[in-house]
Amino acid sequence: ITVPREIFTEPISLLVAAPPSDMHRHFGRLLSSGDGADVTFEVGGETFAVHRCVLAARSSVFMAELFGPMKENTDASVPIADMEAKVFKAMLHFIYTDSLPPMDDEQEVVVMAQHLLVAADTYNLERLKLLCVEKLCNHMDASTAATTLALAEQHSCRGLKDLCFKFLASPGNILKAVVANDGFEHVRRSCPSVLKELVAKLSP
Amino acid sequence: ITVPREIFTEPISLLVAAPPSDMHRHFGRLLSSGDGADVTFEVGGETFAVHRCVLAARSSVFMAELFGPMKENTDASVPIADMEAKVFKAMLHFIYTDSLPPMDDEQEVVVMAQHLLVAADTYNLERLKLLCVEKLCNHMDASTAATTLALAEQHSCRGLKDLCFKFLASPGNILKAVVANDGFEHVRRSCPSVLKELVAKLSP
Repeated sequence: ITVPREIFTEPISLLVAAPPSDMHRHFGRLLSSGDGADVTFEVGGETFAVHRCVLAARSSVFMAELFGPMKENTDASVPIADMEAKVFKAMLHFIYTDSLPPMDDEQEVVVMAQHLLVAADTYNLERLKLLCVEKLCNHMDASTAATTLALAEQHSCRGLKDLCFKFLASPGNILKAVVANDGFEHVRRSCPSVLKELVAKLSP
Repeated sequence: ITVPREIFTEPISLLVAAPPSDMHRHFGRLLSSGDGADVTFEVGGETFAVHRCVLAARSSVFMAELFGPMKENTDASVPIADMEAKVFKAMLHFIYTDSLPPMDDEQEVVVMAQHLLVAADTYNLERLKLLCVEKLCNHMDASTAATTLALAEQHSCRGLKDLCFKFLASPGNILKAVVANDGFEHVRRSCPSVLKELVAKLSP
C-alpha cells in the first residue's frame, strides 16, 4: 500500500538542538597528549611533538614545508630560528584550538599578540593575525602604541595602523607614549616613513 | 623614566572583532585533498585515504584502533564491514568538519541520520549522535517513526524514544505508520519490549 507522504506531515512541538562544535577541544587534547605525533620542532631550546597533517591543514606554509615537493628532510626534527619557545607554543595552541591561550597579565597580552602577529604572518595564519589585531586594538595604550604602529606598518595591517594614528592623534597620548619607553625610537629606526606619515597627519 | 601604566588607559571607541572559527573549513579541505593521508579505509568496495591523528582526535575508538597498545596491523588498509560507503563518507565529513554533509532529499535525511546514529554509537562520536537525534526529531513522520523508535531503544536515546512515543500517541499517526510500511514489524522483531511499552502507554 502506498500512501502519499504529504498526509504524514504533522509538526511536533518538541524540537531538539545539538550542542555547538567541540573540534577545538578534541584537537587541544591531541596536542597536549602528543598521541600519534609524527614530527618534532625545536624552538628556543625546547622541543614540541606535533602532528604534520594538523599543521599542514591550518597553514599553507607548513603544508609546503611538510608535504610539498620542496619539503625539507623532516624525518627527525625541524629547527625554527627567530622565534621564542613560548610564542611557538602559543601558535600551536591556536593551530589546534583556533583560539589564543589564556593570558592574565595585561602587558603579557600585548607583547604576546605582537609576537604572534609576526608568527601569523610568517606561517600564513590569517585568522590568528586577525585575533592579534583584535587584541592589539582592544588593549592599545601609550606604552605600546608606537611599537604596535611599527608592526602594523611592517605587516600591512591597515585597520590597526589607522587605530594607532587615531590613538596618537591625542597630544596627551603622544606625550605619554614618548615618555613611556623608546617605542618611537624603534619606529624611527625600523620604519621612518610611517613616522613622517603620522607627522603629516597631525600637522594642522 | 617610569610612568605608571594607569594614566595611559584611554578607551578607544574603535573595537575590532576577529571572524569566527574556520577550523572546519581547513580540515574539510584536508579531507578532500587527501594531502598527507597516512591510512586507507576500505568500506563497501570504496577506499578512503584519511589521516590517523584526525580520526584519533575525534573518536576514542579510532584512537585505540590506530594508536593504542591493541592497535591492529594498520600499515596498509583497514577494512570496515557492516557499513555502507556513503555512510562512512558522511561520518568522515562529520569527523573533519563537525557538521553533517548537505542533504537535500527529506527521505534521505532520515535514512542517513538513522545509519549515522548507529555509526556514531560504534565510534563514540557523541556530538554526531546528538546531531542525528536532532535530525530524527525534527523530521519525524509516520513513515519513519517506527524504525526510529527501534533505533532510539537500541542506542539508548531517551529523548528520541520519548518523542516517538509522543508522536505515536496520536491514533491517526499510529494508523498512518502501520499503513506506510513494515516499520512496526521491524520493531516487533528487533525490540518487542518497546512495543509492549508503547501499548501500555497508550492503554487507557
